[in-house]
Order: sequence, then structure tokens, then C-alpha cells
Amino acid sequence: MKTIDPKSIPHPDLHQILVSAVAPRPIAFVSSIDEEGKPNLAPYSFFNVFSSNPPILVFSSNRKGTTNAVKDTLHNVEAVREVVVNVVPYSIVWQMAVASIEFAKGVDEFVKSGLTPLASDLVRPFRVKESPVQMECKVLQIMPLGDKGGAGNLVICEILRIHIDESVLDSNGKIDPHRIDLMGRMGRAFYARASGEAVYTIAQPFLPVGIGFDQLPESARNSNVLTGNELGQLAGRPAMPSGEALEALRQEKRIQDMLSARNAVERLHQEARLELEKDQAERALSLVWLAEQTLS
Amino acid sequence: MKTIDPKSIPHPDLHQILVSAVAPRPIAFVSSIDEEGKPNLAPYSFFNVFSSNPPILVFSSNRKGTTNAVKDTLHNVEAVREVVVNVVPYSIVWQMAVASIEFAKGVDEFVKSGLTPLASDLVRPFRVKESPVQMECKVLQIMPLGDKGGAGNLVICEILRIHIDESVLDSNGKIDPHRIDLMGRMGRAFYARASGEAVYTIAQPFLPVGIGFDQLPESARNSNVLTGNELGQLAGRPAMPSGEALEALRQEKRIQDMLSARNAVERLHQEARLELEKDQAERALSLVWLAEQTLS
Repeated sequence: MKTIDPKSIPHPDLHQILVSAVAPRPIAFVSSIDEEGKPNLAPYSFFNVFSSNPPILVFSSNRKGTTNAVKDTLHNVEAVREVVVNVVPYSIVWQMAVASIEFAKGVDEFVKSGLTPLASDLVRPFRVKESPVQMECKVLQIMPLGDKGGAGNLVICEILRIHIDESVLDSNGKIDPHRIDLMGRMGRAFYARASGEAVYTIAQPFLPVGIGFDQLPESARNSNVLTGNELGQLAGRPAMPSGEALEALRQEKRIQDMLSARNAVERLHQEARLELEKDQAERALSLVWLAEQTLS
Repeated sequence: MKTIDPKSIPHPDLHQILVSAVAPRPIAFVSSIDEEGKPNLAPYSFFNVFSSNPPILVFSSNRKGTTNAVKDTLHNVEAVREVVVNVVPYSIVWQMAVASIEFAKGVDEFVKSGLTPLASDLVRPFRVKESPVQMECKVLQIMPLGDKGGAGNLVICEILRIHIDESVLDSNGKIDPHRIDLMGRMGRAFYARASGEAVYTIAQPFLPVGIGFDQLPESARNSNVLTGNELGQLAGRPAMPSGEALEALRQEKRIQDMLSARNAVERLHQEARLELEKDQAERALSLVWLAEQTLS
């Protein structure tokens, strides 16, 4: 392990470590206006939702590391305490990147990025028509985290109204990760596209209980076959296998062959892995228990 | 577009919209201890880095939507104002999911998830040995965002020390997105794996200037061939093509054939698209200018 004290390395290096390690970050494409009504549009990835009741988003407009300059968005939210936070799908990520270029003050990033301003219902800044979720917000508080280059300024926003493009909803009316096709920001020039093969389903957090890793048989915990992720799937099961379930397994010809093999534990662990690949976690848990019983 | 007023829909529905639209979210695997020194480990995706000078992370431990209960982590950081924020790679995501189960108070999630506690240098909570980046933090401030079920509690943390597993670094000593292989949280049971094919490189933000969408020729802006992302790549170029570059292109046999075709504009736009796929954005920009000139 490499150990780093933030104060002991150059600020740009520290910044790159943080943005590479805390990733993928959601992107707020923030629309604001200045006191004269001039629009501004800029992407921020120091951003997240932090509360759903009340519904609160926070993004940070940071002081520039090299010059300590403050960005137009921060100036604007100090003057006009309203923003629209638009999400960024793959289809507009290159136009978003144009909006992130530092144009001269007063230049309209809607014009430069070719994105379409749409009037909001409750706030003055425009929405981005091409974004599938547009959130009209009131700025509750601006909280500086420092006064040097690289210091954040938390902009704490309450969501007043949400607009959702119906084409990103599935047949149950829920947002579909593949249809909304969001981009996440990573370190350096890297982004992650959170759709297609990149999407994993991990149902475990929704189970009310789990037996835990410590309740797995010792031969499973020390297995050379099963990975931490596979053991995690077993540890998340709500209950131990029943005696009946184990007995039923013992009656299967395929399992009997494994039980009588010299490397029975290993073969049953491999079988458990195959069951996990087929989402048969309950059967997999029974298999690792059968394996343990061969040792006693 | 579907329009939603947060106050007009049931809280669980609003919560799901927010976590599905603000994604992919980085995951803080937060290690804390209570006043008696009992460890706790829980994942939080209402989390991000917000400042690099000083280095500040924020996560939120929310009141439970259904019962308004407060989580052990929040109790712990109120009692002992220290945490370790560990990142979550693919290799431990199922073990992380076990730690997210609501075990009884006092149950050690290190034991339940089978992850290994490692003593920290500067704070009392343990690090997670299997996490490739472990950040020892001091809690600066806890900021409640409400008092009802679903309300966030911002836990604002200053990073005191960072531990990085050297196996996630590339040959230049930078964190490699494929090697660190981080998971992002999305809505419902969905996660995004931010490595492999999911990683995109978008170099544009690092260019100091860009001509902008409005400086592209009209025939390109209205093209039926070029997408918004392709136009975005062209709009991000630092300068217009020179007369010499256009003249050189005109001398190429392949381009001459296109220029003399009946559908010259369309063919040149298709050629520009092919050049963009090969990262030849400068040549692509020249091609759309040649296309425009055929119209005058």
C-alpha cells in the first residue's frame, strides 16, 4: 500500500487521486442565470442527491486550482438563487463537454454546445431540452469549504419540480437504466457509461436479513474455489438450508457422484459456483453445507 | 414529458426517481466505531468528494423512509467524530451488500461480510483491507437536512490520510479505471461497473478553447447524418480549419470523388463521421467545411 498525506503532495496530484478514487460520479448539468438574465450552463461532478424528504441535491462549484478563480455558476447562484439540474445521458456527453470549456464571461453555453434552452415552470434558469430528467431547484444555502484554489463551495438545492422524458421509463413507469443511459465522471479524461453490459443487479440489500459470512461453513470460508463475491451471495441468504433440502440434494445422482469423489469439497464448491451463476443461491448454499458435512 | 411535484407523490416513489436519475453514484463504504469501540461498516451512495483543498468528502446517513429510524453510522459519528471511507471495487460488491443488511445493533459487519478490519494510522475506526483506496477522515460537521423519514444528514469529512493499493496504479503511478474496477450505485437493485467497455475517454474538457456549435457550418448543424455527440466533438475543436488544410483535402482523389457526387454534403458528412471514429477530429472538421463550400 502507498500512504499519502494530503498536505505532503502537490495539489493537482491530490485532486487527481480523489477524482479517480471517488468514482463514477453522477453529473449535474447546471443551468443558472446572472443578475442580467444571461444564461449559463456547466457540468459539475462534485454532485449527488443527499435527501429525498425534503428532496435535496448538492453540487460544488470549486475554486480553480491554478488561479483560485470562481466560476460563473457560483457567481450566478449568489445573485439569483435558482438553478435547473439536468442529467447527462450518453447522447449529449460531447455537447456537455463543449459547455465545460471556459468561454469568456457572458458567452452562452447553450449556443456554444448547441443544446436547446427550454423555459422552466417555477424558476428563471432554462432547462436543457435534450436532457431526459430536468430538476428545477431553489438554492437553500451556499457553503464555502475553504478559500484557496481547489476549495469547494457546496450549493445546497431543494428540488421544486421534476420533468422526466417518458421515453426513459419502462413498462411499469420506472426509470430504466438502459433507456436513460447516464454518464458518470471518473478521473482524468475518463467517463463511465452506465448502461448495457455495465449494469449489474444485486438484489441482496432488499432482503431483510442475512445469515452473514460468519455463519457459512468453515470449508466454504476457506475455499480456494469460491471468491469473496460468491461467498457474499451465500452470506446474504436469509436462512440456513433445512435438513430436508440437504437430504433431497443427497438423493440426486449427480450430487452423489460428487460426494463420493476424492475431491468432493472442491467439486461441490464448483457446483455451487455454477448455481450462483444461474441465480440459484439457495441451492448453492445447500451445496456448500453438503461439502462441509463430508469433512465430519 | 412527465412533470412531478415532489410533494404530490408518495415518498418511496420520489426516492426511487431521485436515485434512478442521479446516477451512477460513487459508494462510500464507511467504517465507524461507537463510544464503546464497537466497529460498524455500511455502504452509502449519497456520497461524493466536494473539495480537494482542503480535501473534503461528504456522505449522508439518511433517516429511514418507513420508520424515521437513524442508522448506527450516524449515531457513531455523533459519538466518535472519525471514519474511514473505503471505496468499493467489483471484487467485494457482494460482501458490501451483506454489510448493508440491517443486522441488530452491535453486530459487527466486518464479521458478517467476511471483510478484514485493518488498524488505521490516525483514527480509531478500522480500514477495510480488501478495499483498494482507504481514506482516514475526521468528521468536521454533521448537518441534518430535515427531521422526517427520508431526511439526509450530511456528514462532512476532511481526509487526513489516503492508503492506495499499488496494484490499481498504472505505469505512471496514476489510478487506472480498469484496475480499480469501481462500482457505482444506481436505482432499485442496479449497480454500474465502471471498467472495461463502460469506460469512455472524452478529452475535450482539457482543451483550453473550443470554437463552439454556433461556429460550425449551417449544413453541419442541420445534418441528418451527424449526431449531437459528433457535432459536439467538432464544436470542441480549438480552431477552424485553415485554407491550406482545405486545399490539401481537395487534392485527394477520394475526396474529389465525393465532391463531385450528387449527394456531396451527405457523403462528406459520412466521411467526417468515419474520421471521428478514428479520433481524427481535425480532419473531420475540414470535411464538414468542404461540404458547406459545395453549397455556395
